[in-house]
Amino acid sequence: MENDMKKLIDSLSRNGTEAGYGDDFLLTWQKSKEELAALIDIAKALQGFRKARIPARVFDSGLAVSQFRDNSTRTRFSFASACNLLGLSVHDLDEGKSQIAHGESARETAVMISFMAEAIGIRDDLYIGMGHTYMLEVAEAVREAYAEGILQSRPMVVNLQCDIDHPTQSMADLMHLAEHFGSLDALKGKTMAVSWAYSPSYGKPLSVPQGIIGLMSRFGMHIRLSHPAGYGLLPDVEKRAAEQADASGGSFTLCGSMEEAFQEADVVYPKSWAPFTVMEERTRLVSDGNTGELGALEERCLKQNADFTHWECTRETMALTNNALYLHCLPADISGVSCDTGEVSAEVFEKFRIPLYRQAGNKPYIIAAAILASKVKDPAAFLSAAYDRHNRRRR
Amino acid sequence: MENDMKKLIDSLSRNGTEAGYGDDFLLTWQKSKEELAALIDIAKALQGFRKARIPARVFDSGLAVSQFRDNSTRTRFSFASACNLLGLSVHDLDEGKSQIAHGESARETAVMISFMAEAIGIRDDLYIGMGHTYMLEVAEAVREAYAEGILQSRPMVVNLQCDIDHPTQSMADLMHLAEHFGSLDALKGKTMAVSWAYSPSYGKPLSVPQGIIGLMSRFGMHIRLSHPAGYGLLPDVEKRAAEQADASGGSFTLCGSMEEAFQEADVVYPKSWAPFTVMEERTRLVSDGNTGELGALEERCLKQNADFTHWECTRETMALTNNALYLHCLPADISGVSCDTGEVSAEVFEKFRIPLYRQAGNKPYIIAAAILASKVKDPAAFLSAAYDRHNRRRR
Amino acid sequence: MENDMKKLIDSLSRNGTEAGYGDDFLLTWQKSKEELAALIDIAKALQGFRKARIPARVFDSGLAVSQFRDNSTRTRFSFASACNLLGLSVHDLDEGKSQIAHGESARETAVMISFMAEAIGIRDDLYIGMGHTYMLEVAEAVREAYAEGILQSRPMVVNLQCDIDHPTQSMADLMHLAEHFGSLDALKGKTMAVSWAYSPSYGKPLSVPQGIIGLMSRFGMHIRLSHPAGYGLLPDVEKRAAEQADASGGSFTLCGSMEEAFQEADVVYPKSWAPFTVMEERTRLVSDGNTGELGALEERCLKQNADFTHWECTRETMALTNNALYLHCLPADISGVSCDTGEVSAEVFEKFRIPLYRQAGNKPYIIAAAILASKVKDPAAFLSAAYDRHNRRRR
Repeated sequence: MENDMKKLIDSLSRNGTEAGYGDDFLLTWQKSKEELAALIDIAKALQGFRKARIPARVFDSGLAVSQFRDNSTRTRFSFASACNLLGLSVHDLDEGKSQIAHGESARETAVMISFMAEAIGIRDDLYIGMGHTYMLEVAEAVREAYAEGILQSRPMVVNLQCDIDHPTQSMADLMHLAEHFGSLDALKGKTMAVSWAYSPSYGKPLSVPQGIIGLMSRFGMHIRLSHPAGYGLLPDVEKRAAEQADASGGSFTLCGSMEEAFQEADVVYPKSWAPFTVMEERTRLVSDGNTGELGALEERCLKQNADFTHWECTRETMALTNNALYLHCLPADISGVSCDTGEVSAEVFEKFRIPLYRQAGNKPYIIAAAILASKVKDPAAFLSAAYDRHNRRRR
Repeated sequence: MENDMKKLIDSLSRNGTEAGYGDDFLLTWQKSKEELAALIDIAKALQGFRKARIPARVFDSGLAVSQFRDNSTRTRFSFASACNLLGLSVHDLDEGKSQIAHGESARETAVMISFMAEAIGIRDDLYIGMGHTYMLEVAEAVREAYAEGILQSRPMVVNLQCDIDHPTQSMADLMHLAEHFGSLDALKGKTMAVSWAYSPSYGKPLSVPQGIIGLMSRFGMHIRLSHPAGYGLLPDVEKRAAEQADASGGSFTLCGSMEEAFQEADVVYPKSWAPFTVMEERTRLVSDGNTGELGALEERCLKQNADFTHWECTRETMALTNNALYLHCLPADISGVSCDTGEVSAEVFEKFRIPLYRQAGNKPYIIAAAILASKVKDPAAFLSAAYDRHNRRRR
Repeated sequence: MENDMKKLIDSLSRNGTEAGYGDDFLLTWQKSKEELAALIDIAKALQGFRKARIPARVFDSGLAVSQFRDNSTRTRFSFASACNLLGLSVHDLDEGKSQIAHGESARETAVMISFMAEAIGIRDDLYIGMGHTYMLEVAEAVREAYAEGILQSRPMVVNLQCDIDHPTQSMADLMHLAEHFGSLDALKGKTMAVSWAYSPSYGKPLSVPQGIIGLMSRFGMHIRLSHPAGYGLLPDVEKRAAEQADASGGSFTLCGSMEEAFQEADVVYPKSWAPFTVMEERTRLVSDGNTGELGALEERCLKQNADFTHWECTRETMALTNNALYLHCLPADISGVSCDTGEVSAEVFEKFRIPLYRQAGNKPYIIAAAILASKVKDPAAFLSAAYDRHNRRRR
């Protein structure tokens, strides 16, 4: 344990970890590979600290503001855990309880909630073209307010899922892959199938598959994306994934079936999502106030989904792979468990349940690492000092 | 003050207090009498610490998760206070806001909210056969996840009221009795009447009277349980109370009226509850999705209640007792104050208002003691060190 | 910075700051001018501490209870920030989730939530004659419970807006004025226009203008209050403002138009509020259970408002002033931004946006100062010790 910690902190010192200082955490592709590697090292160190009960408190006081514009249990608790670990107290900006509903501008509200905030975590994933834009507005508002001397410190903004990316999820997944294969370098040349899968529910965000292809394509992996016709992802993100894969020595291929994508794959990520065009239509209806037509859209979309119930990850599809690791961001639609027919058979899910939980368990540490890297100039020195202080006390 | 603290900590050292280490706090009868006595000593010590502003922080960081499947003000604030005293930050698992409503399994959710949790407090008292079962599922899920290395520490589960027991309430009551009569030993031979009382409201849980007879019967008390025909408690708990009373040198008697139960009683606990059979019927209706029939059941039950408005604790019934101490878990239905006719007359309630508030005030300290005893291997040593550290600083 | 801090703490030492020790913070006119000056010094010191990341923690543990009987974003986050800065953990008493709705008395609830509470912040501004009364009840209940030994410490009550005053707002405004004009003394002889302004919304509380005239009239200012006929404030508060203005060498004048009030004014505070008589009528309807008639009242009131759309703060009205500072408690109804026609033109608002945000940013520090002054016997000594401790550590 002691050795592991020292090695991690040394590895962190060698990678320039100051790169993220003062920055927000919005899209993984805005970060250098070195920054991403450093975040994973910090997350691992914090996990070790927690296990050994070494205090990792960065702040004596301060708020972390969360704003969930979509339901959430896991991400909500992950953010709360991460902030708590660093010494921040989470307060939720719940639009139902606040005056936001009465036309207050997002920009003003962002400042008004930030007088003692160090971090703002936002989930806004329901409407195409809106979530990421909103996060940029908030980040800009608090940046200006700090520059004007209105805020005594600038809160960093962390994307807890937007319409484009889900960076704390994809980074938790990357951390899981690095642990499974031994290192980030070991991902080079591995094949990963990101496949649409059937779900009896409607309107799942696109940001998880987009986040995965937008991140994993940078580490020399061969990414295969498969989905039924009409279920494409944001064209910009697909294009970016292809370019990044090229540049990193990997590849990006579209496949017509889950079976084709799974052939000899080392990792599979079968997951449902809504068609991009349906999400756009929904956004349009909501923007225009035609919420009465949302029901009809949902019905049409579910009917379309029902043509593809055979897109299910089962023992048979898994048999096509190179003994692949199964990933999912959870909760999964498990056939015969949480629904009649879903994304994955109970048998496959149960086989990977423990590693899936471990994958999910990375997320609070990734969030904490993102905040720490933004707020502490030299994370390696900070962690090293905390580690030494703890050990001196124990002696 | 200083002397009192030292004595308490000494008493704690003599009782083996390591017994509860690593355990959950679900039903009082799963705990040895020594453990229960130790919990009361710890609670008293923490109360003294708070008064003298001696820090009692066990954790540098960490979450406490609360889940209230029934309304609550008092228990909610008691749990929040207890966790705060020990250094934990409370986050509520609110099913309305989360994905649980969408069929996520309880087992998976329990793990997902626990990545940095040290304690999970649950209130689930509405349906017979369900609350305690749910708590066991949660406890088992986090035990497994800790064993698998998914969680860095195992959160302990504390029952904040289930269908069977309300252990933090009954222990707060026991602490109150021990203070009133001078010691736990002094309870031996005392007579306690636990009586049903009329209320114009419907569906009050059975767990308070069950918790009381299940706990007080272990301390040599003569327990008398009285209720109208059809208002019996869970047969298992009544049987257990009778056996425990026998074993401890007390007794357990069923009485047909409040008046009979109150004769020469030293303590009275008159309180309304729903008939066991009504609670079962309600559970069945909800399980089968027949929620449309719940209104009819409530009406039938209120009509049945109305036959027993004379089951009220008044100056006259109190006169039958041996100058008894009046107990109630609060809030009470007070005749002429919170309702026309209720569980207790305003005169009796007002006479005992201050001691009742003191009784209620024990609860946060009992909850804190339960968490501390589960998380700290040697509570006496911990408290002693905290006490000395504080006094060194002040000098 | 170091010099500024030392000067502030010295200034604090010279003013007797022990005056507020143990007190609640309900109405500014219950406080001496020396206490108010000390609160502003403490607030400034805390702002400096936060900027320099000097810990200002008063409490090792403890709850702050918030109760919002009206919507709130800003005040909610201000209170949360203030409590967090001092080391308290905020828990909200949400009547929707609690048993209060079931007839529990306010007095009992106040005690039940306070077993480890150090501060209780209440917003209760909707009904004339109720909010301040409720706060007094809560304060009295916890005072009694502390005296009886039920509570180990007495929580102080802070008014986060009642039917009479909004003291944390008016004090934040006073702090802003003192900074703008150089000192509290510099306010003497300045002219301040507090004017009604048009809003398309209904039922805005009167407590902001009342709080302003009730506070600023004590510092030798010439206060002009203007509003359409029928929009008067509470007569008691107007009378108090006139008397205080006389005593402090200022004046208090009623004007018939915004234009008249603005003539050569040094400060303007144009803001909408509901007519006092409408607020009374609403209170009567709610008290009598005639909530069905509330819609008609709102319609009547909005129609009445619509006669006064020309009560708007514009470039033209501002041109009448002595280059006045524009104040608003936010959020403002900005013409063409948050509504068609509102309290202020977009041009005027935008010119003052940065100072307005700075004004709002004082509020969390004022709240923290009020709690600190109530809980710490010698705030100057406390702040001085915290400052020295931090500097010793850094060396």
